[in-house]
Amino acid sequence: MSSFKTIEWKNNKVIMIDQTRLPKDEIYLEFETYEEVADAIKRMVIRGAPAIGVAAAMGIALGALNTTIEDRDQFIKEVNKVTDVIMATRPTAVNLFWAGKRMLGVLNSQNGSVGDMKARLVEEANIILHEDIETCRSIGRVGAELIPDNSTILTHCNAGALATAGYGTALGVIRGAREAGKNIKVIATETRPFLQGARLTAWELDKDGISVSLITDNMVGHIMSKGMVDAVVVGADRIAENGDVANKIGTYSISVLAKSHGIPFYVAAPISTIDYNCPNGGNIPIEERDINEVTHVLGSRIAPDVNVYNPAFDITPNENVSSIITEKAVVKNPFLKGLSDLNK
Amino acid sequence: MSSFKTIEWKNNKVIMIDQTRLPKDEIYLEFETYEEVADAIKRMVIRGAPAIGVAAAMGIALGALNTTIEDRDQFIKEVNKVTDVIMATRPTAVNLFWAGKRMLGVLNSQNGSVGDMKARLVEEANIILHEDIETCRSIGRVGAELIPDNSTILTHCNAGALATAGYGTALGVIRGAREAGKNIKVIATETRPFLQGARLTAWELDKDGISVSLITDNMVGHIMSKGMVDAVVVGADRIAENGDVANKIGTYSISVLAKSHGIPFYVAAPISTIDYNCPNGGNIPIEERDINEVTHVLGSRIAPDVNVYNPAFDITPNENVSSIITEKAVVKNPFLKGLSDLNK
Repeated sequence: MSSFKTIEWKNNKVIMIDQTRLPKDEIYLEFETYEEVADAIKRMVIRGAPAIGVAAAMGIALGALNTTIEDRDQFIKEVNKVTDVIMATRPTAVNLFWAGKRMLGVLNSQNGSVGDMKARLVEEANIILHEDIETCRSIGRVGAELIPDNSTILTHCNAGALATAGYGTALGVIRGAREAGKNIKVIATETRPFLQGARLTAWELDKDGISVSLITDNMVGHIMSKGMVDAVVVGADRIAENGDVANKIGTYSISVLAKSHGIPFYVAAPISTIDYNCPNGGNIPIEERDINEVTHVLGSRIAPDVNVYNPAFDITPNENVSSIITEKAVVKNPFLKGLSDLNK
Repeated sequence: MSSFKTIEWKNNKVIMIDQTRLPKDEIYLEFETYEEVADAIKRMVIRGAPAIGVAAAMGIALGALNTTIEDRDQFIKEVNKVTDVIMATRPTAVNLFWAGKRMLGVLNSQNGSVGDMKARLVEEANIILHEDIETCRSIGRVGAELIPDNSTILTHCNAGALATAGYGTALGVIRGAREAGKNIKVIATETRPFLQGARLTAWELDKDGISVSLITDNMVGHIMSKGMVDAVVVGADRIAENGDVANKIGTYSISVLAKSHGIPFYVAAPISTIDYNCPNGGNIPIEERDINEVTHVLGSRIAPDVNVYNPAFDITPNENVSSIITEKAVVKNPFLKGLSDLNK
């Protein structure tokens, strides 16, 4: 496991490490309302598809817990409203909607009192957290087989303990390979504009004693051409039915470069990231974020006031993906049947 | 022409716009010694292969001008020493060595007094500056033919007026296309770690009223996959005899992405950038710069204290280059004969 907690439920509050302040400050924030949790997801205090799912569930649980409504029907209405607010925070990561649906499923299946329903929702949010950790551990075990001993793995953004309830997806595979006794080095791309690689992946791996070297995003081709990368492992924000992958902006470029250098490109994600209602990547909405993320770094302006594009994600077509590593199995390309089988 | 001066010789001093301070501050620095000019090249107060060539020539002229040595042989020895110091500032841009050799050629061909030789070296440095501007204008005229009307050109780093004595190489092609009446938009990559795209290209194009949109380096693949790029035009720090191109780190990745999307990839550079003693890209030394450029932005730390790679350049193999645009002609792939013909 990682040596820090990304998110937890404690004394009817939600505690999160503030990922906007890392690596400079390791600060844990306490949230008492669902609006605060919604804002934290929007501001990327917490980010990473699985972690967003856990935060969403806990936000819904907080909203349910804190309402003074005593009427059952009114309570159900209120929790639905809370869920709508939470699910409107970010559009791309499917785990947000998956967690929202799961919490509403629990809500709708309860016949007890409002108090019972509150307790059950809090319980479910905590089950989701613990399941996520177990899921990541399984991804790590399953994926470790693909990682040769003495290899260097390039990863993008942060699909680590910080992007999940703990352990990580892409970095879960790294942790799994290490636990299997393999000697693994990581190259982390800094991942502009939000710098999740430089700020979070480098911090997380360094803290856990895993060898990590940092590069800027535009060094990937050069590093690959020098034979310095044995495999790429990244996470996913949403996987379409056909294996197209939405992930952090820059993932697609890396997939093209990996293909052109004959380097395997693996996506590690829980089955909850697969959107079986989404036939292909063209159907996945891509979030556009504030242009200040590009024109500024740590609050300081780096560029004049010009036009800016800031798509937060891109789509990697399935033909660029070697395998998708889930908690149940490694699914090989072509994906349609293999991914469908996971859903049975 | 651009509306600012990158470098000039004035009252026996060298004036440069401080490119480390742009876009926040437009400050012009005065240098009175060759050591100061050498330091300015090292610190990237001035950068870009052609501009480095001009700065080198002016640094050598300053060194020659300022010595109190009266003996001819001692003077020649001193200017050779000055040239060695200047040429040791940066390893990759060949224009530095080209300019040094040219100044020494002038020195060695002079039979007059030390005073005459000083005047001749100052004159030669200024000739190099004015030739560079004319060369860039020719590159612009020659290259404009390749640029369709109503097109969007992606460029990397800064190969603009700021990278030359004025007008630019890659941005010279943009300026040339505009002067030919074409409607051109530019997408500039921010170009980590030194941010030449965000800080310099965006500033320079915006200042001259040319439409520019800024992206982070990892957005290139996504933007290309959306059909938003009609051609790539970049500069070069050194071109091998076979057409392999050393240019700012990230250029190689962009060339692979351009090829995979069927987008033409053009390199714009003066003939002085072609190193006819260099058979291929494998022979070009790649400068490794201070890791603080990666771990810090504008002096603020963005990453923990981990391993870092910071190669300042990469090699784009000739098979990824559609054409090389020089002041004499567009040379098409394959390059060996075409580049050799330019040298006749």
